[in-house]
Amino acid sequence: MTLRITVFGENRHEKVDERVQELYPEGMHTTIAGALTSTLGALGEDVDVRVALLDDIEESLSEEVLANTDVLTWWGHMAHQDVPDEVAERVVRHVREGMGFLPLHSAHYSKPFRLLMGTTCNLLWRNDNDEERVWTVSGSHPIARGVPHPIVIPGQEMYGEMFDIPAPDEQVFISSFSGGEVFRSGCCFYRGKGRIFYFSPGDQEYPVYHQAEIQRVLANAALWARPQEDRERAAVKIANAPRDWFREGARTAEGEEITRVI
Amino acid sequence: MTLRITVFGENRHEKVDERVQELYPEGMHTTIAGALTSTLGALGEDVDVRVALLDDIEESLSEEVLANTDVLTWWGHMAHQDVPDEVAERVVRHVREGMGFLPLHSAHYSKPFRLLMGTTCNLLWRNDNDEERVWTVSGSHPIARGVPHPIVIPGQEMYGEMFDIPAPDEQVFISSFSGGEVFRSGCCFYRGKGRIFYFSPGDQEYPVYHQAEIQRVLANAALWARPQEDRERAAVKIANAPRDWFREGARTAEGEEITRVI
Amino acid sequence: MTLRITVFGENRHEKVDERVQELYPEGMHTTIAGALTSTLGALGEDVDVRVALLDDIEESLSEEVLANTDVLTWWGHMAHQDVPDEVAERVVRHVREGMGFLPLHSAHYSKPFRLLMGTTCNLLWRNDNDEERVWTVSGSHPIARGVPHPIVIPGQEMYGEMFDIPAPDEQVFISSFSGGEVFRSGCCFYRGKGRIFYFSPGDQEYPVYHQAEIQRVLANAALWARPQEDRERAAVKIANAPRDWFREGARTAEGEEITRVI
Amino acid sequence: MTLRITVFGENRHEKVDERVQELYPEGMHTTIAGALTSTLGALGEDVDVRVALLDDIEESLSEEVLANTDVLTWWGHMAHQDVPDEVAERVVRHVREGMGFLPLHSAHYSKPFRLLMGTTCNLLWRNDNDEERVWTVSGSHPIARGVPHPIVIPGQEMYGEMFDIPAPDEQVFISSFSGGEVFRSGCCFYRGKGRIFYFSPGDQEYPVYHQAEIQRVLANAALWARPQEDRERAAVKIANAPRDWFREGARTAEGEEITRVI
Repeated sequence: MTLRITVFGENRHEKVDERVQELYPEGMHTTIAGALTSTLGALGEDVDVRVALLDDIEESLSEEVLANTDVLTWWGHMAHQDVPDEVAERVVRHVREGMGFLPLHSAHYSKPFRLLMGTTCNLLWRNDNDEERVWTVSGSHPIARGVPHPIVIPGQEMYGEMFDIPAPDEQVFISSFSGGEVFRSGCCFYRGKGRIFYFSPGDQEYPVYHQAEIQRVLANAALWARPQEDRERAAVKIANAPRDWFREGARTAEGEEITRVI
Repeated sequence: MTLRITVFGENRHEKVDERVQELYPEGMHTTIAGALTSTLGALGEDVDVRVALLDDIEESLSEEVLANTDVLTWWGHMAHQDVPDEVAERVVRHVREGMGFLPLHSAHYSKPFRLLMGTTCNLLWRNDNDEERVWTVSGSHPIARGVPHPIVIPGQEMYGEMFDIPAPDEQVFISSFSGGEVFRSGCCFYRGKGRIFYFSPGDQEYPVYHQAEIQRVLANAALWARPQEDRERAAVKIANAPRDWFREGARTAEGEEITRVI
Repeated sequence: MTLRITVFGENRHEKVDERVQELYPEGMHTTIAGALTSTLGALGEDVDVRVALLDDIEESLSEEVLANTDVLTWWGHMAHQDVPDEVAERVVRHVREGMGFLPLHSAHYSKPFRLLMGTTCNLLWRNDNDEERVWTVSGSHPIARGVPHPIVIPGQEMYGEMFDIPAPDEQVFISSFSGGEVFRSGCCFYRGKGRIFYFSPGDQEYPVYHQAEIQRVLANAALWARPQEDRERAAVKIANAPRDWFREGARTAEGEEITRVI
Repeated sequence: MTLRITVFGENRHEKVDERVQELYPEGMHTTIAGALTSTLGALGEDVDVRVALLDDIEESLSEEVLANTDVLTWWGHMAHQDVPDEVAERVVRHVREGMGFLPLHSAHYSKPFRLLMGTTCNLLWRNDNDEERVWTVSGSHPIARGVPHPIVIPGQEMYGEMFDIPAPDEQVFISSFSGGEVFRSGCCFYRGKGRIFYFSPGDQEYPVYHQAEIQRVLANAALWARPQEDRERAAVKIANAPRDWFREGARTAEGEEITRVI
């Protein structure tokens, strides 16, 4: 079964910031999309990776695109407010219905992630070329498969605790920075029928997405977050369930057939 | 320290529904407020319980009221949409800043609870006089203190799984119904600096809030959810934190003194 | 990659109890092994299922057998004490090193499960032909894949809360019984590098393991619990880690090469 | 209600190690006991702190002592094996029955903690005067009350991930070390009716327990872990529960009155 990934890129720093142009001459989204294609390919997966940009977000993240996306990655930073509310809500709805979602780095402050978390997602930060070390704290997690302990990122923006998120359903990675801070850098959340993996490495001013170990984490996460092909893409149901509905053929009190609850 | 509780009541069924008028002649909010006052009083607590109604929600849940509320209980059902978005967001903000929040029964579908959860909060339901048995599944949880195992509620609306919420941070109670369904009926969530306890018993057509064991759960939950008096009521902070900020007196990169992070 | 499963059966009720002989003429272990073989085969998996019995447990669960087992299922009831302590500890060690473990029904009281949980694993029970309904409470869990909501088991022994286990890392199923009790019937635990799924349906006096939906759960659980083929089968490491060990080639203070931490 | 604390100290390094004698001339246990007495006293608590040493552990941690202990702190390092198995099992039993338990630093490898966790409790370590910074990651946790973010410990032994424990029920603190490692340094676990808080700062060669902020954490933890006075000190019950036992007066199938389940 082909794994269909959509890589959303804000693509704004790339237009105005020389350092970013130098690191990512074709845009961060191109590097991320290429990394997913090659890493998953090397793992034997059949993948179809497309790119969606903010400039035409109504089309690039349309209802049809999302309905045909298994896993959506999201990178945004300076233009969170330019994402229309209805697109953010569309993404959230698709996550609840089963689409995997991988918010990256500064996407901690993106509209869809904040709506899904219900918290401020505040944190401490410092852009000062800290070394980051990404430590695994879950002994058997598939997202940590095949990566060293720790992953060392030579230069990175610092993200520090207290990170105002719900306690993750699974904590995969915790990072330290040369300045002394710590951060819950790899966090799994289950919401509705969707799976979310937040991964904090990846500031635009550092070549993080060129690092093979980071690419492997993204590939692992896409595999982990993909929906089950035989589970209907639809929200967990609300229904008026008459007594014994589950014995005698499921029908709601309104007579509608209950073909699916979860 | 006085525990300041605000009991929010929708007070709409009470105006139009004879059965509810019979069970709660002074409104469900009056029964809940009285139960909290007497049960917490009997436990030796100093409490100040006020009531807030939907009809004047802008004043009854004003910024000033919420700033002086330790724990907010919320009952609503037929008029969730009449709660203004800005009031719902104000409640959510106060929870994140430390206010306790106790959504009751059909408040699973209230605006503040859904914003805090990030999920649909869908479920199955049936209003058919089911017996509900509320079982404790956490051996030392303070919210289960002093209540029987199980609490038997002779008649109740059924709420059934799959309940589309994030996995609770602490599962206190699980209910079964005479029709066979189960429900995670007592759920703790930590969000920001606030504590949330969702408790599902309490449909308007049954005398659930008159039951002493249910009143004890509400009292226990108010004690559990109260904020710590020496913790500032403010959100977890976002700040640009210069290197060594935590050593040399905390100042942000903008020179603002960091007096508080959490 | 072949999934290597060992099905441990106590095989004592089968020798003395006519009802069990009638339901499982070749032993419960044979039914379970057959169900795993056929269900996983139908799902396209390459499996190798062997049986291990209490009568020759030193050989059937030898170090060599366990080292070549990806997932161990365990059914025991009347003879938990006949499992030698060293075999129980061997199983526990292999789980910590990455082997999947599926304790079934009364294996809640088996030596390996209790050692892994650290709690009493006490519960309430009643053998009185209760109907059990197994409800899914996790919208995207692979172990709930392809099974109805709820699974209805016409007759079963009742297991009821309070079940004295650590809070499960993932709650997949919750059951109700016709007598009114509830039970956390499908529970995932991560311990060391191993994955554990406890599943409570399956008393010897009822034909539970002949039910296709139960067989599907067992197959799903085996897939979920299997170790990653590229992760070394060994415990998480304890080591004296000199400063910068992770930069300059990992060596312990004793000079031993650190080839693996997790 | 007086909070009755027993401070267990191994008291072996104090006999042979000059550095430890210099830092803790009356033994580490004396410093810890004094800190708890004074800090809890300053918080307005009525406390009774006694000391128990390894040399007479059969008496100092007798059945009677434990039955009259609300919270037991445990420091041990070089003599874990000298703790008799039956004493370790006695401690574990009391925790399951409701006693609070605070294993400190190298008590991660003590017999009672390992029995309660079910895992190896392995970790990385280095005794090289690392600076440790203890960060709060739970916005409203009572154990983090009144302490700075971070607590800076000038010199400490490094404990590093992967720490082979079950995922904590509540993560309160995460530490970083000047060498770059991270560690889940403050972890809450619920087991049976007891509460466990593991806190890693406190090596014998550094004056950690003289630091006021560390003393505050210990005091907070003792308050958090204390059992509820109206909850019976006994394990969660196993019982044969006849149909309708919870309606008609609880009796087991053997006719014994069920006066307590949890």
